[in-house]
Amino acid sequence: MPQSEFSLIERYFANTGTTQYSAKLSQGDDAAIVEIPPGKQAVMSVDTLVSGIHFPEQTSAADIAHKALAVNLSDLAAMAATPAWFLLSITLPEVDETWLAEFSARLKNIADQYEIELIGGDTCRGHLSITVQVTGLVDKDRYVTRSGANIGDLILVSGQLGNAARGLAFLQKKIRLPKEEQELAVQALNRPIPRLCLTAFLQKYASAAIDISDGLIGDLKHILEKSGVGAVIRQADLPVNKWIKQNNAFQYALSGGDDYELCLTVSPDHRNHINAWNQNNPDCQLHEVGEVTESGYYLITDDQNVDLTRAKGYQHFGE
Amino acid sequence: MPQSEFSLIERYFANTGTTQYSAKLSQGDDAAIVEIPPGKQAVMSVDTLVSGIHFPEQTSAADIAHKALAVNLSDLAAMAATPAWFLLSITLPEVDETWLAEFSARLKNIADQYEIELIGGDTCRGHLSITVQVTGLVDKDRYVTRSGANIGDLILVSGQLGNAARGLAFLQKKIRLPKEEQELAVQALNRPIPRLCLTAFLQKYASAAIDISDGLIGDLKHILEKSGVGAVIRQADLPVNKWIKQNNAFQYALSGGDDYELCLTVSPDHRNHINAWNQNNPDCQLHEVGEVTESGYYLITDDQNVDLTRAKGYQHFGE
Repeated sequence: MPQSEFSLIERYFANTGTTQYSAKLSQGDDAAIVEIPPGKQAVMSVDTLVSGIHFPEQTSAADIAHKALAVNLSDLAAMAATPAWFLLSITLPEVDETWLAEFSARLKNIADQYEIELIGGDTCRGHLSITVQVTGLVDKDRYVTRSGANIGDLILVSGQLGNAARGLAFLQKKIRLPKEEQELAVQALNRPIPRLCLTAFLQKYASAAIDISDGLIGDLKHILEKSGVGAVIRQADLPVNKWIKQNNAFQYALSGGDDYELCLTVSPDHRNHINAWNQNNPDCQLHEVGEVTESGYYLITDDQNVDLTRAKGYQHFGE
Repeated sequence: MPQSEFSLIERYFANTGTTQYSAKLSQGDDAAIVEIPPGKQAVMSVDTLVSGIHFPEQTSAADIAHKALAVNLSDLAAMAATPAWFLLSITLPEVDETWLAEFSARLKNIADQYEIELIGGDTCRGHLSITVQVTGLVDKDRYVTRSGANIGDLILVSGQLGNAARGLAFLQKKIRLPKEEQELAVQALNRPIPRLCLTAFLQKYASAAIDISDGLIGDLKHILEKSGVGAVIRQADLPVNKWIKQNNAFQYALSGGDDYELCLTVSPDHRNHINAWNQNNPDCQLHEVGEVTESGYYLITDDQNVDLTRAKGYQHFGE
């Protein structure tokens, strides 16, 4: 049964997510109206996921919904912002009620979990792709950028790196994984966790931060360029699954995409706060993987120093 | 020469548009930071244009850039908001430097014209589509919605209706147009004018407003539904080009898409203000095309009253 754009939005996306910063006017008009509380700044980002590029064609509607919102929430996490509102633009080859029901159910779920409200959007016909635009809030000038890293700062990453890229390689049948590793890897690819758990820590202690969407090497490089500094990364300290160590498959952690962990720089003066954080937050661990230096960009492995200056992360238009 | 997503944005989209509400931080970080001045609310909208659906495949990069931003600015115009910032998500089949140069040049041009600043975005590979998310500002609670129309209000539309749909039919070789009409029609399709000229008028006098993207009948219907009222439209009063009258082709004005004129309702008490507006604004004329009634929805033509209750506008998923 063909449905109009209007009724699609009404039927599937009304009342998706709630936030303490409820919109004055949302969905069903030409635009949404929101109020920014006094003393807050708005933090805005947009990301499009294209079927076959950002997720395999066979990805479930639920996983696409999760990922489309999660990767945008991850940008807010990297800026130390709190989620408030999002807009959704969804391009579908056809109206598939089952697909939409599954997509919208999971979208509601994750929007509720992270307390972000869907305030508007549009639907179009075409090759499957999903654009999400998020707005977060941050206390005035308490956001964290890519440009504040200082020489001597510790380089930290959250969680575990390389699982999502491993999951993709597994789904593409490029590698085999032991049965007990498969779900971890595929979940990491399809259901990344935006590290909003770190917002308060970042505001207090981070000099710079970025989310790792294109691999540690490439994303840390953005911090280094913006901050005008160098770095060393110690391969042995990378937080990776034992399969990566056993197979010496560190490339998944270093230049694989889609982890959506955070990479942050923190003054060594705050090492006691890092330790306290890790003791109190078993589900949101920080790992020291290197240091900010005056210049150069090196990976220290067991037997060599690899110059990373010309290395690249995952790039949609790259070679 | 393949280029990374990062350098594409840097190269083509840095310094696009300026606004008096300059962003604290834009482009080149995980998200942009903006400040909403005290007493203002943020007005947010998103629209995606897909090649072959929202514009013909052969449309020039310049026209795509114009339209992608203009249709979003039109949503701000309909809410009586002033443009401030936009985000751009661009999906391209391949990196085409000529295309990008033309696209970004025109984007800068229109962003400058309407004083809106590009604060971030992303680029992806895939079937050509452009998503723009705009944020405007409005004095607290001075926005105009679809839901305020009152019985007895005059129904006004800006500019001229039906030219864009005529332009599409001409490009699709469904109709022939006299030589001197072709450019007007194709320009209306490819380079719609967001009616931001009406912002002050709307704030003062409009009880409701919407932008006409899917044809007058369908879009006015949204106002009627949201306001709980009915309407009559007089076909003879529609502001249309003489070709439409001569060919009795009012369907282009009534249910053709893409005009991006505004439809607004105004109390008859303000008729003197409407007249004064029209005298002072020859490039932004308002035309009275009907009245808000208690119930029902009718088009009055020369020889009949057409019941519009079940009529539809242009719908991307419609029959």
